[in-house]
Amino acid sequence: MEHNINKHISGKFNEELENVRNQVLSMGGLVEQQLNSALDAVAKGDSELAKKVKENDYRVNAMEVNIDEECTRIIAKRQPAASDLRLVVAIAKTIADLERIGDEAERIAKVALDSFTKDQQGLLANIENMGRLVSKMLHDVLDAFARMDAQKAFEVHKADERVDREYEALTRQIMTYMMEDPRSIPRVMELIWSVRSLERIGDRCQNISEYVIYFVKGKDIRHVSQDMIAKTI
Amino acid sequence: MEHNINKHISGKFNEELENVRNQVLSMGGLVEQQLNSALDAVAKGDSELAKKVKENDYRVNAMEVNIDEECTRIIAKRQPAASDLRLVVAIAKTIADLERIGDEAERIAKVALDSFTKDQQGLLANIENMGRLVSKMLHDVLDAFARMDAQKAFEVHKADERVDREYEALTRQIMTYMMEDPRSIPRVMELIWSVRSLERIGDRCQNISEYVIYFVKGKDIRHVSQDMIAKTI
Repeated sequence: MEHNINKHISGKFNEELENVRNQVLSMGGLVEQQLNSALDAVAKGDSELAKKVKENDYRVNAMEVNIDEECTRIIAKRQPAASDLRLVVAIAKTIADLERIGDEAERIAKVALDSFTKDQQGLLANIENMGRLVSKMLHDVLDAFARMDAQKAFEVHKADERVDREYEALTRQIMTYMMEDPRSIPRVMELIWSVRSLERIGDRCQNISEYVIYFVKGKDIRHVSQDMIAKTI
Repeated sequence: MEHNINKHISGKFNEELENVRNQVLSMGGLVEQQLNSALDAVAKGDSELAKKVKENDYRVNAMEVNIDEECTRIIAKRQPAASDLRLVVAIAKTIADLERIGDEAERIAKVALDSFTKDQQGLLANIENMGRLVSKMLHDVLDAFARMDAQKAFEVHKADERVDREYEALTRQIMTYMMEDPRSIPRVMELIWSVRSLERIGDRCQNISEYVIYFVKGKDIRHVSQDMIAKTI
């Protein structure tokens, strides 16, 4: 099931490519940390932590630009073909999604800069729960990427359905809250945005899972039904 | 100022690359049409047109997948370097943003499936105005892409500020409306999403303008201030 990527790299690729792959994993680790810090900041109302998330976003951006340059350099210099090229393409796309996940984490952290009533804290707790679900999805897809495990990537792909359901439920819950206490709308709208950000992160994890499957199976499975993906795997 | 791309292509690139560039322009034209149809559908409450936008989205998706494959094939077969490679990279990134703009257009069109009170029609008119601004941005950035005109791309980059201001103003206006008529919240929330979609399209046009500048100037100017971009150009 699992693609033996290490063997593959030592055979066909040089250290440069192994190196760039490690950079993607570091970037993934940083983005995961940013998301978890954002969720912690929201759960604890910790504005200091929220500010740290904001400050660290430039590191995510810098990593994307560096890895992207490195990918272009590798293509120009090493002229990879077949699965080597697919790996570079998968990396280039993955980092674009990781960078945007970093942006969403920053947006979520902003919620911790506001203060909320006790009633609203209940909504925050639900957002945190959804956040942990999404955080696990990110963790799992990075794991699938690290091991280039198409099966695991497909599990993540399917997990997005649950995130979408949570998103629907939470949005409805927040709207009900708004209807009962209209004066809260400007503040509570911030919560709607953060729930939306979490849903977007789920989508981006799903994108990354598609790149892993593309690399391993050599097939572009975007815009394809999950039944068809199951057949590919 | 303008990069002589036709000369460049006939010299170093073959028909394949000219062909893929034309495909991007066709895809851009289709996405522009999708956005304008979505805005028309919302303005006129035309649910038939809205359904057509939804039905046509698969065409945008298919174009992205085809062009993406063609880019990978060109890299593998022709092993482009320097500005040739930059063009392929710029194309691959541009179509990813175009595809997402198509998704946003589909989301905006959904508004036309609901019916709105006369009061709410006023909000719709404002959304349409913002939409036309964004549509012009898309048109201009596709034009900048077609001519690989870094100066024009930079103009689009700067235009996003105005879209962001409109976004803030409209969001505030819709929230005020919600506070005055809380029962309208579930319906009016759809308007908030479409305003958000327009703001996202503006961001994606800005992304495309960055790829044009990257191609022409050979510099990655993402996450860079506009003062610095002005110096690059």
